[in-house]
Amino acid sequence: MPIIVQKFGGTSVANVERIRNVAKLVQKEIKKGNKVAVVVSAMSGETNKLVGFVNEFKVRNDAEYDTVVASGEQVTSGLLAIALHELGIPARSYQGWQLHIRTDSVHGKARIEEIVTKDIVAGFKKGEVAVIPGFQGVTSENRVSTLGRGGSDTSAVAVAAALKADRCDIYTDVDGVYTTDPRIVPEARKLKKVGYEEMLEMASLGAKVLHSRSVELAAKYQVPLQVLSSFEDSKEDIPGTILVKDEDIMERRVVTGIAYSQNEARITLIDVENVPGIAAKIFAPLADAEINVDMIVQNISEDGKKTDVSFTVPKGETEKAVKVLEGAKKAKKVGYARINSDTKVAKISVVGIGMISHSGVAAKMFATLASKGINILVIATSEIKISVLIDSQYMELAVRALHETYELHKKPAGGKAVATKKKAKK
Amino acid sequence: MPIIVQKFGGTSVANVERIRNVAKLVQKEIKKGNKVAVVVSAMSGETNKLVGFVNEFKVRNDAEYDTVVASGEQVTSGLLAIALHELGIPARSYQGWQLHIRTDSVHGKARIEEIVTKDIVAGFKKGEVAVIPGFQGVTSENRVSTLGRGGSDTSAVAVAAALKADRCDIYTDVDGVYTTDPRIVPEARKLKKVGYEEMLEMASLGAKVLHSRSVELAAKYQVPLQVLSSFEDSKEDIPGTILVKDEDIMERRVVTGIAYSQNEARITLIDVENVPGIAAKIFAPLADAEINVDMIVQNISEDGKKTDVSFTVPKGETEKAVKVLEGAKKAKKVGYARINSDTKVAKISVVGIGMISHSGVAAKMFATLASKGINILVIATSEIKISVLIDSQYMELAVRALHETYELHKKPAGGKAVATKKKAKK
Repeated sequence: MPIIVQKFGGTSVANVERIRNVAKLVQKEIKKGNKVAVVVSAMSGETNKLVGFVNEFKVRNDAEYDTVVASGEQVTSGLLAIALHELGIPARSYQGWQLHIRTDSVHGKARIEEIVTKDIVAGFKKGEVAVIPGFQGVTSENRVSTLGRGGSDTSAVAVAAALKADRCDIYTDVDGVYTTDPRIVPEARKLKKVGYEEMLEMASLGAKVLHSRSVELAAKYQVPLQVLSSFEDSKEDIPGTILVKDEDIMERRVVTGIAYSQNEARITLIDVENVPGIAAKIFAPLADAEINVDMIVQNISEDGKKTDVSFTVPKGETEKAVKVLEGAKKAKKVGYARINSDTKVAKISVVGIGMISHSGVAAKMFATLASKGINILVIATSEIKISVLIDSQYMELAVRALHETYELHKKPAGGKAVATKKKAKK
Repeated sequence: MPIIVQKFGGTSVANVERIRNVAKLVQKEIKKGNKVAVVVSAMSGETNKLVGFVNEFKVRNDAEYDTVVASGEQVTSGLLAIALHELGIPARSYQGWQLHIRTDSVHGKARIEEIVTKDIVAGFKKGEVAVIPGFQGVTSENRVSTLGRGGSDTSAVAVAAALKADRCDIYTDVDGVYTTDPRIVPEARKLKKVGYEEMLEMASLGAKVLHSRSVELAAKYQVPLQVLSSFEDSKEDIPGTILVKDEDIMERRVVTGIAYSQNEARITLIDVENVPGIAAKIFAPLADAEINVDMIVQNISEDGKKTDVSFTVPKGETEKAVKVLEGAKKAKKVGYARINSDTKVAKISVVGIGMISHSGVAAKMFATLASKGINILVIATSEIKISVLIDSQYMELAVRALHETYELHKKPAGGKAVATKKKAKK
């Protein structure tokens, strides 16, 4: 009998009525003859409430934070088990410490090390559904740990990997992965299949459908992951978007989707002394301050003596980054004339595994943006994506123009995979 | 170093600000050089909210109920540990399954079988405060259990017994045990000391200060239990009411307090055939239906052939009890002419360990009620209490009159204990 893992997010379990609806979706899989393990988030709003309590204190204790915050998922797991009983389906909840879901001891952003599945498997033999709270685990010191935001997706994939599940279905409030955000481009098309690497790029570039870590884990253990909606009833066998190995994508397409994000800010250092090792001097103090730098561009001046360096940091850390660099200037650790920052920027990314074997994607992107009069501030590329930083007021315009340029509203012809066997670098 | 267990109820931990106040009360004991374990309830309203979720379902699963409902205390334990850290006091939370607090497997009303204290004791050696969620434990099947309403008091006493604590302080929203409810009798006096047996009677008779099971446990393990307020700051060493062995009460008093309750209803069977074994025939079907019968009175008619039987049941089970007895009549298991019930009744109880050696308490009670024109419907007595059932509209009047009759507003003279060594029956 196939094993299916189903995961339901906060809006899908927001109240008892919705939990009943989730129970029906579980019942559907049971009726097909599947063995089912379900992973649930906390009721929507609950985790924020609990985090709010903890944040009222002036000190932080990560282990106690986890004890408090993990309780939200505990509640939902018990309630869903009861909802399944109501439908006459045997079910029981297993907390992280009951299974165990062993994690490392990095409280607040723990990583799963092992999931003991013997109780779940024994339950399957009795026809029992296992209900597992997402987001939480237990450390080797026997304390409750949590995996960080979006951790329930990761829990679900980890459970699926441990059970060698035939499919892991992630139910969210969208019904799949789209070529871009349908709120910006109404013609955006739902993708039947997306490669793990593509999804990983899209997730880290701002597509909010899946958490990056869960995609990473799915890729590592080759878990067939499906994204679908818990609010719509579909008759299709695979109603959502399924994540597969990049080489298994059979559609002839070069670009898969357009992602965007407004979570970054640009910082520019003007008239930096252009000496060897200057990049290290700029970025070392930022690394020491635990500020993540993403896109970087350096323009060499004509005489080669002075240069401008631009880069992006998470928007919330802009002020901190500027202070760190001003401090480094005062301490004579790095020399530059002026510093400026801009938080009104957006990152637009074109993603597609097909880029590996197709040239001209970047040129097309730059030409499209130029034709709309959109100035490119910073560029960053990888084998399967090109990202540009632009003025945020042009964000929607850029996304729409690029969606049209690459004809993403059209279903590509099926056929041989365009991706080569070569793995794309992340 | 003395060991103190402190327990804080829901209103004392209702929000982060109040949890900070609780941390200060813990700090006070730490500064005196005590080792401290703290037991906490869920934030007020939280348990009701969780029970509400569970009650929305048509089926019940007691193990899942406990998983859901125990989460409230988990949250508070983590938050209090952080609040203590904020004051620079080392502290950590221990869930029922972490310690362990072993209970039997009667989910929803489990009984504590064992508390493993080695982690707490090891923590004490490092100057660490143990924060323990009340109400919850773990079964031998490794599932979360709860102790039933008021269970946090029981948890605190059990922790105190296991640690052989020097004192267990129960912080509530009242500052001690009073001769009666001060909302009814403003002259009610706070008692310095109350005997375990007296408190047990008062708790089971409606005094809401402590849960009966916690008092029972305190009596069994001779835990010195203090009831005091978390909202008032007192300079006294023992600011609340302390529970001691009945023979340790040094005040010369006959009556300790007046309790009242409106939780019961009266049922009367009229013209019952007065044959041997009739009482068993009436109460057996009620016992089968798990209806608790409390006060019972049987009036024998003049000819001895017919009798009226009155008794009380919990108010919420009145209808069920009537149905059960009507069914028994139809099934010819019990014969009577008519049945009637009354939910507008109140039980008034006079409690005092001194009654054992003093006569005339009951006579004085009946005379007082008669002088106010209050009719007594049913009487029940034990060695240390007399309870009467009256029309509920006279409840306050009766309590005030009895409080005055026994001069409870006056502080009794100290001296030798009035109680004999003989243990009072419960």
